[in-house]
Amino acid sequence: MVKLNENYLKLPGSYLFSEVARRISAYTAAHPEAEIIKLSIGDVTRPLAPAVIEAMHAAVDEMGTYEGFRGYGPEQGYPFLREAIAQNDYNARGVEIRPDEIFVSDGAKSDCGNIGDIFGVENVVAVCDPVYPVYVDTNAMAGRAGDYDSRSGRWSRLVYMPCVEENGFSPAPPQERADLIYLCFPNNPTGAMATREQLKQWVDYANANGSILLYDSAYEAFITTPDIPHTIFEIEGARTCAIEFRSFSKTAGFTGNRCAYTVIPQELERNGVKLNAMWNRRHTTKFNGVPYVVQRGAAAIYTPEGRAQIKESIDFYRTNAKVIREELTAAGLKCFGGVDAPYIWLKTPDGMGSWAFFDLVLDQANVAVTPGVGFGPSGEGYVRLTAFGGAEATRQATARIRTMLHSGGVAPTGR
Amino acid sequence: MVKLNENYLKLPGSYLFSEVARRISAYTAAHPEAEIIKLSIGDVTRPLAPAVIEAMHAAVDEMGTYEGFRGYGPEQGYPFLREAIAQNDYNARGVEIRPDEIFVSDGAKSDCGNIGDIFGVENVVAVCDPVYPVYVDTNAMAGRAGDYDSRSGRWSRLVYMPCVEENGFSPAPPQERADLIYLCFPNNPTGAMATREQLKQWVDYANANGSILLYDSAYEAFITTPDIPHTIFEIEGARTCAIEFRSFSKTAGFTGNRCAYTVIPQELERNGVKLNAMWNRRHTTKFNGVPYVVQRGAAAIYTPEGRAQIKESIDFYRTNAKVIREELTAAGLKCFGGVDAPYIWLKTPDGMGSWAFFDLVLDQANVAVTPGVGFGPSGEGYVRLTAFGGAEATRQATARIRTMLHSGGVAPTGR
Repeated sequence: MVKLNENYLKLPGSYLFSEVARRISAYTAAHPEAEIIKLSIGDVTRPLAPAVIEAMHAAVDEMGTYEGFRGYGPEQGYPFLREAIAQNDYNARGVEIRPDEIFVSDGAKSDCGNIGDIFGVENVVAVCDPVYPVYVDTNAMAGRAGDYDSRSGRWSRLVYMPCVEENGFSPAPPQERADLIYLCFPNNPTGAMATREQLKQWVDYANANGSILLYDSAYEAFITTPDIPHTIFEIEGARTCAIEFRSFSKTAGFTGNRCAYTVIPQELERNGVKLNAMWNRRHTTKFNGVPYVVQRGAAAIYTPEGRAQIKESIDFYRTNAKVIREELTAAGLKCFGGVDAPYIWLKTPDGMGSWAFFDLVLDQANVAVTPGVGFGPSGEGYVRLTAFGGAEATRQATARIRTMLHSGGVAPTGR
Repeated sequence: MVKLNENYLKLPGSYLFSEVARRISAYTAAHPEAEIIKLSIGDVTRPLAPAVIEAMHAAVDEMGTYEGFRGYGPEQGYPFLREAIAQNDYNARGVEIRPDEIFVSDGAKSDCGNIGDIFGVENVVAVCDPVYPVYVDTNAMAGRAGDYDSRSGRWSRLVYMPCVEENGFSPAPPQERADLIYLCFPNNPTGAMATREQLKQWVDYANANGSILLYDSAYEAFITTPDIPHTIFEIEGARTCAIEFRSFSKTAGFTGNRCAYTVIPQELERNGVKLNAMWNRRHTTKFNGVPYVVQRGAAAIYTPEGRAQIKESIDFYRTNAKVIREELTAAGLKCFGGVDAPYIWLKTPDGMGSWAFFDLVLDQANVAVTPGVGFGPSGEGYVRLTAFGGAEATRQATARIRTMLHSGGVAPTGR
């Protein structure tokens, strides 16, 4: 009889975004006239940039001819894309990353989960709390998380690093031993950023303990504050302790186009084994490359036109973030994030719970947000708002929340 | 200190196709005038069908507009594609598969490897010998293969099922216990097919033992022999013991476009747990869907025009297979496969070793083949030829091998 991977059976059933969708559906069914504005979803809404569209059309045409057709490409990505990434995202910032340290993939979500394959099950994993659920779920599946306690909302073998107002939502290295440490800056869900000094602390901790930093930088394009590092490899010593995940999803609206990359420096070794070589073996054995057409589209964001066009989109979303942050702050709410990130982390008024506030704004303002507690116990008392909507909808949503607050609707409704 | 997944360190270093490429490069460097014809690579060469190109252009245009833009899609694939697959690849053959049993992915290679995630490490895995290396390598990485013995070329915990002339390269179920059984029909590398009766034996074995059949049917489009099953789900009882992997790679030339799917029936349970639900959890947690543009391209092969166009390409490759099979048989060589598959499995003359024959035809005929022993110990004494080249190149290659044979060049050269 075949044995199942029993770690799967430990995963709690309900998923945050399913529950959010379920409550919105239920509300809409009961109030068919309500026009819900969703500031809950972390997905882009603007079309692909014209330069990307043009490059994709050209690549599709190539694929339709004998001369231009491409079959299996290099699993790690075509040289034209790996070189453009190295040059533009790293070398241009004075950071030395070579094309053979870059693995092009179908998504940072896939990579953040799959990276666990090259590490032993016995490693201790540290995650932020609140956290992007994929880090936790994929480690639970692999057997690294231990058992789930539904009362505390925590796994027995994970090290949780609370991200709270007191530490600016950017935790210091833990006292306990942690072998694999997931960091995400700009952060999802809090929108927080780590300073150069904070990241240096992490690099020193990892090098001292032989730990590996798994640095998720999917929202890098949103960084505007001067001197905030754009990559972990700006930090001295990172080449011997860090793996970085990047994505075209939020940088260039590729959520439906699927392209990302992982950077593993050649110097990163443990027990004399190069992690770049291990990941190369994994990547070439269990993956067959990103579609040629998509890689051509991704490369187009590095042309002068492409660069200008994606900057315009990022600026558009940034303006939304500014509107949410400023309007809700003016309304007396406490907002974090939204400066170097597309996420605003809103403290609920009067100490309301995340789900109670979710229900309240859904009912009173017809705005959907994401309950912070869904990202981890320390997210209780917060909700996440995203800047990925339309400009008018975003303004309208914040105006409705302001109106709700002024009309005194902040008391918990008990629903 | 972080611990590595030590199973990776057991993997033998050299990879079949790298060694083939290395020897071709070395030969070309020494003989720059030689025009090598490659019948070694399992990659398509004909462009994407016009219907696919048209659908992809239309989808790229959609992605460039506010109304048509698609961000994150359903991880399992868009309904338009899952429904087209269920209808055309199954229901039209009288096989009941529903869209919610189909998971669209970026490749059968990925799926064949990743499927192991939902099973325990302690399962006993059975593979054919010779075999597509991905089944073995991914299970070795997961710790299911035991230790590698470089002398026998075998892993200590795998059950090997020799595929030899005597059993028509289609093995019977083993005497030993096997929990996870990889079957690939039409077969890579031997080009063999399993009959309805043979597959029924497998289904009965799996249902009797609680085993799971992992049925790789990536070359299904090449089946022409009447009454050969096109899917494992034509066999009674398969819905409680089989998972099927299919791909658009060879069906529609998608090797550089990346689209495939995995079928897991709702009835497939072990210990009361639905494998469909487990895979759904895995797929949605560690994968984010196939690009919208690619899914539109894949769906286009089910239109009347698309269907006619991909049939024309398959027929073209089939003619190549026929040429190789007939010409080399007429030259006195023993050929298997190549009827319901794009692969010809050629027995080397005079009991030559696979690599010796590889070197001989490279030197005497300037034709590259793939040594059978690279797919497993029972592949010794065979080479694989593929039908994916051009018509003229294929004819020329077989003519050169015939000439070589007639000029008496079959004696091992000792190189």
